[in-house]
Amino acid sequence: MEKAKTVSKEVRKDVKQMTFPYHTDKTDDFTSEEVNLANRCHGLHLEGLDLALTPAGMHYLLIHFDIPTGPATAESTYRLKLRGLVDRPLELSMADIRRRPRVSIPVTMEYWTHVPWQNEALGTAVWTGTPLKDLLEEAGLQDKAIELLFTGLDKGLQGGEMQYYQRCLTIDDATREEVILAYEMNGQPLLPQHGAPLRLIVPGWYGMTNVKWLDSIEAISTPFDGYQMQAYMFTQYPGDPQGKRMRHLKVRSLMVPPGVPDFFTRVRLVEEGNVKLKGRAWAGPLAVKQVLVSVDGGVTWAEATLAAKAVGKFAWIAWSFEWRNARAGAKHFLMTKAIDELGNVQDNAEEWNYYAMGATVPQSVPVVVVSSPEWRITGKPLPNPPRHPKL
Amino acid sequence: MEKAKTVSKEVRKDVKQMTFPYHTDKTDDFTSEEVNLANRCHGLHLEGLDLALTPAGMHYLLIHFDIPTGPATAESTYRLKLRGLVDRPLELSMADIRRRPRVSIPVTMEYWTHVPWQNEALGTAVWTGTPLKDLLEEAGLQDKAIELLFTGLDKGLQGGEMQYYQRCLTIDDATREEVILAYEMNGQPLLPQHGAPLRLIVPGWYGMTNVKWLDSIEAISTPFDGYQMQAYMFTQYPGDPQGKRMRHLKVRSLMVPPGVPDFFTRVRLVEEGNVKLKGRAWAGPLAVKQVLVSVDGGVTWAEATLAAKAVGKFAWIAWSFEWRNARAGAKHFLMTKAIDELGNVQDNAEEWNYYAMGATVPQSVPVVVVSSPEWRITGKPLPNPPRHPKL
Repeated sequence: MEKAKTVSKEVRKDVKQMTFPYHTDKTDDFTSEEVNLANRCHGLHLEGLDLALTPAGMHYLLIHFDIPTGPATAESTYRLKLRGLVDRPLELSMADIRRRPRVSIPVTMEYWTHVPWQNEALGTAVWTGTPLKDLLEEAGLQDKAIELLFTGLDKGLQGGEMQYYQRCLTIDDATREEVILAYEMNGQPLLPQHGAPLRLIVPGWYGMTNVKWLDSIEAISTPFDGYQMQAYMFTQYPGDPQGKRMRHLKVRSLMVPPGVPDFFTRVRLVEEGNVKLKGRAWAGPLAVKQVLVSVDGGVTWAEATLAAKAVGKFAWIAWSFEWRNARAGAKHFLMTKAIDELGNVQDNAEEWNYYAMGATVPQSVPVVVVSSPEWRITGKPLPNPPRHPKL
Repeated sequence: MEKAKTVSKEVRKDVKQMTFPYHTDKTDDFTSEEVNLANRCHGLHLEGLDLALTPAGMHYLLIHFDIPTGPATAESTYRLKLRGLVDRPLELSMADIRRRPRVSIPVTMEYWTHVPWQNEALGTAVWTGTPLKDLLEEAGLQDKAIELLFTGLDKGLQGGEMQYYQRCLTIDDATREEVILAYEMNGQPLLPQHGAPLRLIVPGWYGMTNVKWLDSIEAISTPFDGYQMQAYMFTQYPGDPQGKRMRHLKVRSLMVPPGVPDFFTRVRLVEEGNVKLKGRAWAGPLAVKQVLVSVDGGVTWAEATLAAKAVGKFAWIAWSFEWRNARAGAKHFLMTKAIDELGNVQDNAEEWNYYAMGATVPQSVPVVVVSSPEWRITGKPLPNPPRHPKL
């Protein structure tokens, strides 16, 4: 079993010395490193909520280390290793994997609202691959195996440890029928940044579960508690002994920001009158029961209309809402939140992680209503002389 | 001709009031808005420099407003309008366009090193589409036409103006044989965020030229000086009368950050010994003559080995360099820069734009060299008790 290792204090100090200070607790002093992370680990473009399936490059990304390229991930030379406490260890090529039973499943995948994202660590795609369950049966899991350890090909330093990205699942969680090893996304070959050639997909679970660039699956007899397991906990404060492992997505709703944006601030402009609002809601493995919308910053809420059917059992459902008589000159904060089939409400602050930036806090979209003449582009001459952006 | 319009002072004030203050001139107090922009307008993952062609979702993006979706961009209902000073105005469906002559061309596309990017506003893709020249001949450009105005379907507020994204080209620039209307990227259908269903590709020019979600092409008799023309100028200071329109990409080189990263800071760790460095260089329509590498933060420079051939006339060329005897414990800033066939050197500060953050300044990669035992992941037990990321 490949394990993470702690690097020396000197190396950690060297790494720290070569960069600027970390982000403080102020809202608006993000560091270059955080902007850089946002550049690598981008979010869903929220207007993409209009699409039932998120195209590959619009789907959010979290890349812990580097995207592996080269022979280890090439179609012809890649090998998946299934080993550990199994009767028949397997080493499979992509051709072997593509010959196996093939299933497709739409999945809404999400990560915390957390640096570097705001609301948009999200995406819904149809993943195509082969069920993990069948592979495990073929290999023959031994009785003493209690967990499966999934190791990615991506390596780096995090929390002072040199590590491959590693996550585990219990045998029960890993052998559910919807758990697959995926090699296609929306009917196209998996792109490098989404885990090519092969990744784990565990529908209904937070993104970090879905290990990319899968190198090996190892059946183990002692619980794995590596860095990437310890890091993803719901806790109320540092070291909280009541902390819970992150598992299933919680209920949440987002709207397509209406109208058009101001380039830099992304504040929205909408035309006066009736404004159609729309969006999507999801609750991991649960159904969404109700979506609420507020046009007054959360003072009052009204019910949105849900689509007849969700995109899938583990994928979002569309909703719509008519905002009537928006008055020119008015400013609004539009909000939305959802409630799942068990009655869980989105803004349950108790569940926040102490270092998450927003967790499931309802989205709030700043909107300026403009008059119809102002909304239209009429063809008046452009102003002179040349001016420059404010940046 | 659709023109931008200035919105009222009240609307502009409202937009401003609904957001946090703008970024100041300090290095490390980026605002939420800037992080949000980075999330939408992501960069190339620099490890992707290892690939001759950049996969769609790894290619940099600049989306001024929203990604248009719906009927205006749908394959079956989309129409390109070619109008203005032409004898035979055209209105073409995607089927019409796909029936026309089809060409493919590899292009390195780039934008300024500028908020929200650091080095990585870059990508190289094979674009497939139909030559613009032939379409213009079919429509019959009139003699008094001096420019073509390209209008996108994306609308929003920028610089106080409500506008569709608009850029122009002179007839000479627009009728070069390499200028195409593209509907495929790397052999796959164009993705929404890259301009689907149809975009302009002008090889060798900065990214803002390549208008996405193309709605119309209009032949005009007076020079177009709209916001998106005024904004992209090489100037030394605000209002500089010597300012020049941005056209061709300047010479530049980047390296694949070697070794593995620290998750948060992206500082690199490499194993002691000989380290192979590699990267790509480009110079818009010009050839790259030489690539230089420094392992001591720019104090001394040595020549890298260029590949025999560039990926294309308008696309980057690979280079490699062996860094010998990297010593464990040492810290280095690795740098690279290029020189084009006319002798232009990358770090020509004179050409910087006054508000660009780095322009063509050579990349500098912080690297910590670690000992071989430290580099390997040996399988020692993981530390306990649980710890949390620093964010």
